[in-house]
Amino acid sequence: MQPRITDITSPANPVLKALKALDDKRGRREAGQFLAEGLRVCTEALAAGHVPDTLLFTPEAERHRLTQALIEATWDRRGTILRTTPQLMQRLTGKDNAQGVAAAYAIPDISLGRIDRSTAGLWLVAENLKDPGNFGTMLRTCDATGAGGVILLDQSCDPFSVEAVRASMGALFSRQVAKASGAEFFAWLRAGPGQLVGAALSDSAVDYRAHRYQAPCFLMMGNEQAGLPAEYVARCDGVVKLPMHGTADSLNVAVCAGVLLYHALDQLG
Amino acid sequence: MQPRITDITSPANPVLKALKALDDKRGRREAGQFLAEGLRVCTEALAAGHVPDTLLFTPEAERHRLTQALIEATWDRRGTILRTTPQLMQRLTGKDNAQGVAAAYAIPDISLGRIDRSTAGLWLVAENLKDPGNFGTMLRTCDATGAGGVILLDQSCDPFSVEAVRASMGALFSRQVAKASGAEFFAWLRAGPGQLVGAALSDSAVDYRAHRYQAPCFLMMGNEQAGLPAEYVARCDGVVKLPMHGTADSLNVAVCAGVLLYHALDQLG
Repeated sequence: MQPRITDITSPANPVLKALKALDDKRGRREAGQFLAEGLRVCTEALAAGHVPDTLLFTPEAERHRLTQALIEATWDRRGTILRTTPQLMQRLTGKDNAQGVAAAYAIPDISLGRIDRSTAGLWLVAENLKDPGNFGTMLRTCDATGAGGVILLDQSCDPFSVEAVRASMGALFSRQVAKASGAEFFAWLRAGPGQLVGAALSDSAVDYRAHRYQAPCFLMMGNEQAGLPAEYVARCDGVVKLPMHGTADSLNVAVCAGVLLYHALDQLG
Repeated sequence: MQPRITDITSPANPVLKALKALDDKRGRREAGQFLAEGLRVCTEALAAGHVPDTLLFTPEAERHRLTQALIEATWDRRGTILRTTPQLMQRLTGKDNAQGVAAAYAIPDISLGRIDRSTAGLWLVAENLKDPGNFGTMLRTCDATGAGGVILLDQSCDPFSVEAVRASMGALFSRQVAKASGAEFFAWLRAGPGQLVGAALSDSAVDYRAHRYQAPCFLMMGNEQAGLPAEYVARCDGVVKLPMHGTADSLNVAVCAGVLLYHALDQLG
């Protein structure tokens, strides 16, 4: 049986409107879905076992064999398959140079209990991380370094926003993500093996090269402006800092996480 | 003589409109100015010798002693000093939670000839870098590591856009920035001492820990999507790559630059 493809030619189309509603957090919560863009990202999602609820593409993108694989997979799972114009795709993604493929996926369960710490030697923990671009970039670095994923604490950003998904470049599908309160996290952490290493410019911090990282190692980063709260720093097994040679004494949190991940990876082997 | 402060209460005020025009590249080019936000950033600019052409603040921010220092400095240099409402400040910066201080600065000369390579052991070179957030983050990491700054090649982004200035967190004032074509850069580079190290996933690349970095070392990063062109890689003195353990074989360019800068810093001492 041939996949059934529906053509969408009007911006008023209700399915297109429903996809557009995934732009904001409320829309995502109500639908239980989030949006990812790009043939490469959707293909990586498929490789990791994630099939779209709804798949949308332009006629040009449809010709690509990887799009055909996405159509097949979506059809097998009884998903919705839509073809639309480049103009409407641009309207949906809000980008001038829109991708030819976009898809809505079911938001997975991101409770802490779903994290399997035995699957990786390195993890990131982010306290009150506000910028979805930073989150996505950190998750992407987890993929590059083979780290397990990111555990978001407290009032952190939504990991399924368009910006987060974009910055993660597909890592949202290959890595583990959880969201929890600080109290939940500390209880979970201490119920199993794990070394908690905080990144902070506090007095107790040692140079990041002097610390001995041990797997499973949880690298905890603080909020973009405020850094880690003192009470979180106090609960760490080690506190590290990067040398600061400039005038500003600050570093982007995703860059800091990247330097620590690559260094710890080097040591853990 | 007391500084003369002008109150701005209307969104139609021509001076406010002129500042708003700095949002886009054409406005910046015509005015020869760019906009920076935040008391901290403007204070760091002042410490580095940069005085605003125009200084704008809210009544609440005015009470801060650092704002007073900015007012004095602006007045001494015959700059324009403006007080406005939080609402108009928000309108100017397009941010919900706007800073209480913003200032317009003269765009400096960013020709390559202004770069003094003897002032630092490490430099970043970015080819066709498109994202101003990546540029600003890279410049901020230059500040943290004591690297000299960023040389932008070819069709790179404008280093004075609001996003670039925001992401640089003041590093735009403490670091050196230049823009040039690839041909200009290679001619300039080879007219003096310098080791050019490209970051690329090409066959010729060695693990970044295996390379011997020598000052002044120029770390060259490629475009976010395409990476470094083969003809640029061929002109490098060394080509390095970061190990990739994940599914995506990719890393954010600013994270990659951060890992390389901290590693090279470690080796150069």
